Amino acid sequence: MRVSRATIPAMIQPARGLVLSLSVFLFPFMALAQPAAAPQKWALAIHGGAGTIPKNLPEEQKQRYLKSLTSALEIGRDVLKSGGTSLDAVEKVVRFLEDDPLFNAGKGAVYTHEGTHELDAAIMDGRDLSCGSVASLKTVRHPISLARLVKEKSPHVFLVGEGAEAFATEMKVERVKNDWFDTPVRYQQLQEALQEEQKSKPGKKDKDTVGAVALDTHGNLAAATSTGGLTNKRFGRLGDVPVIGAGTYANNRTAALSATGIGEEFIKHTVAHDISALVEYGGLTLQQAADRVIHQKLKPGDGGVIGVGRDGSIVLVFNSEGMYRGAVDSAGRFEVKIWE
Amino acid sequence: MRVSRATIPAMIQPARGLVLSLSVFLFPFMALAQPAAAPQKWALAIHGGAGTIPKNLPEEQKQRYLKSLTSALEIGRDVLKSGGTSLDAVEKVVRFLEDDPLFNAGKGAVYTHEGTHELDAAIMDGRDLSCGSVASLKTVRHPISLARLVKEKSPHVFLVGEGAEAFATEMKVERVKNDWFDTPVRYQQLQEALQEEQKSKPGKKDKDTVGAVALDTHGNLAAATSTGGLTNKRFGRLGDVPVIGAGTYANNRTAALSATGIGEEFIKHTVAHDISALVEYGGLTLQQAADRVIHQKLKPGDGGVIGVGRDGSIVLVFNSEGMYRGAVDSAGRFEVKIWE
Repeated sequence: MRVSRATIPAMIQPARGLVLSLSVFLFPFMALAQPAAAPQKWALAIHGGAGTIPKNLPEEQKQRYLKSLTSALEIGRDVLKSGGTSLDAVEKVVRFLEDDPLFNAGKGAVYTHEGTHELDAAIMDGRDLSCGSVASLKTVRHPISLARLVKEKSPHVFLVGEGAEAFATEMKVERVKNDWFDTPVRYQQLQEALQEEQKSKPGKKDKDTVGAVALDTHGNLAAATSTGGLTNKRFGRLGDVPVIGAGTYANNRTAALSATGIGEEFIKHTVAHDISALVEYGGLTLQQAADRVIHQKLKPGDGGVIGVGRDGSIVLVFNSEGMYRGAVDSAGRFEVKIWE
Repeated sequence: MRVSRATIPAMIQPARGLVLSLSVFLFPFMALAQPAAAPQKWALAIHGGAGTIPKNLPEEQKQRYLKSLTSALEIGRDVLKSGGTSLDAVEKVVRFLEDDPLFNAGKGAVYTHEGTHELDAAIMDGRDLSCGSVASLKTVRHPISLARLVKEKSPHVFLVGEGAEAFATEMKVERVKNDWFDTPVRYQQLQEALQEEQKSKPGKKDKDTVGAVALDTHGNLAAATSTGGLTNKRFGRLGDVPVIGAGTYANNRTAALSATGIGEEFIKHTVAHDISALVEYGGLTLQQAADRVIHQKLKPGDGGVIGVGRDGSIVLVFNSEGMYRGAVDSAGRFEVKIWE
């Protein structure tokens, strides 16, 4: 059995004793953290969905995506660079992406078969595996923040539908009418899906989602994912996003992961936890583990995953035509991409 | 990389070629099966919940539990012995337990805070990882059978609330009024929980659930779990049962698993998939893997898990005072137990 450094209480690691004693005096909260990497190192990866993204995307639209991904990276970078937590970074980044109508989460969410919007989100703290999931929300502007409140203020970890809405009322989070999430582009997609359905053609499946994963300077990992689900989905359908271990997972012993794709396939393959387990028990690197699951277990076109390892390594793996994504770290990397 | 026998198409295993050629001729469906163990071997394990079960349980009540568990085992044994599928066996066993008011699933489900019942269930086929989950059902007599229909007749794998009820209508499954699930014992438990809540005492958490896992003579594994959730739970709260990888998991490469306990902890620790991963990647036996997760990762009192491995081995592991459970296999084992 391999004993990970994260399992050894920080105070009994002699080489770091003095520094940590001072830290405990100066910053009591650090005593709770289980360092998973050398302090000061940080990393962030984000995605805005994977799928069939036409390579002849108009230049102006392409630039809008890249600009939004860049802004999201900057928001997260600022949190991490100034010593903020990975949990704060991923929540803040996902809130920004939820508000951007370009992405299928929050404002700009796809339509259900019934012409409404149902939103799912999950967040997980790699330090102690604490997590929160919300699903089938109709009036919560920022599902990711409600997921964090479930994690922190509820005895439960998974709330759905009216129960989740009642919790939102109790928590006094910002509410909007369901049609606040409307956008003309997504409405058009629903009409196309309904027409294809009438012709009994398999509809184009939108599998957009937004997500962020981060390592902070305290050595802690966190993951956050938010989505409007599938265009034309039947009400009450849940995908992988709120399923801990499928679309969202974080564990200081291994990695923080956020997936995007055909949710049903990601649930069947318990994608995020499987990647983590291949690292922890199989001895694979995070890159090898993500490649194995996305390219060997899933089918081409199913989607992708982003991850940050406990050592700050970043993976961005997908088996679809493209994935809106970005990465930034303390070593100076800063990139946003769609294809390739 | 270890190549499991389940990944090698049966037809190219020379030693079994002739027998299988005949089988394919006689029973076309067998060609689809990925054998996970020698034919003719079968095994079944069941549980009826884990928790604080007083050892001074009146003898008459104890006998009622043991008798019901015995009947459940006999039902599953008859399916498996006559060459039926593990999927049919676990569904049939769980349907029986759902109808028995002794257990917290179907008739006899606990009450929510609001005095109603909300039922969750999941089923998974180890052959191809296909699965179905339903949650927050109010009027479906047999949640496990609706979960199976989600797996087999829906493009989705996870349906909740009114969406799941609408699917039940479409599938024409048996419906009952919500108060059909009422039982005086569970009503009394809700009153006690509400009183304890008023005194700000942590309530006794009922963590009963029913589950069955099986290996059939075709070498296929399947798992099924069904529950009424937690007494006094807020509406919309989901536990681990419908979360594939947490409370329910089956994979012909490893094992079929069904958990029972504090759902929140089982979700955080992705218990069922973690046990499977420790077997597949960590090289542990099923018993070692289940012991590791239940006794080292979870806390005493959290609950337990039952599992059947691809070789027909059976595990029944719990860290609570007791677990209603039973096991039967083709080698002649037949036992039902509560404590020890």
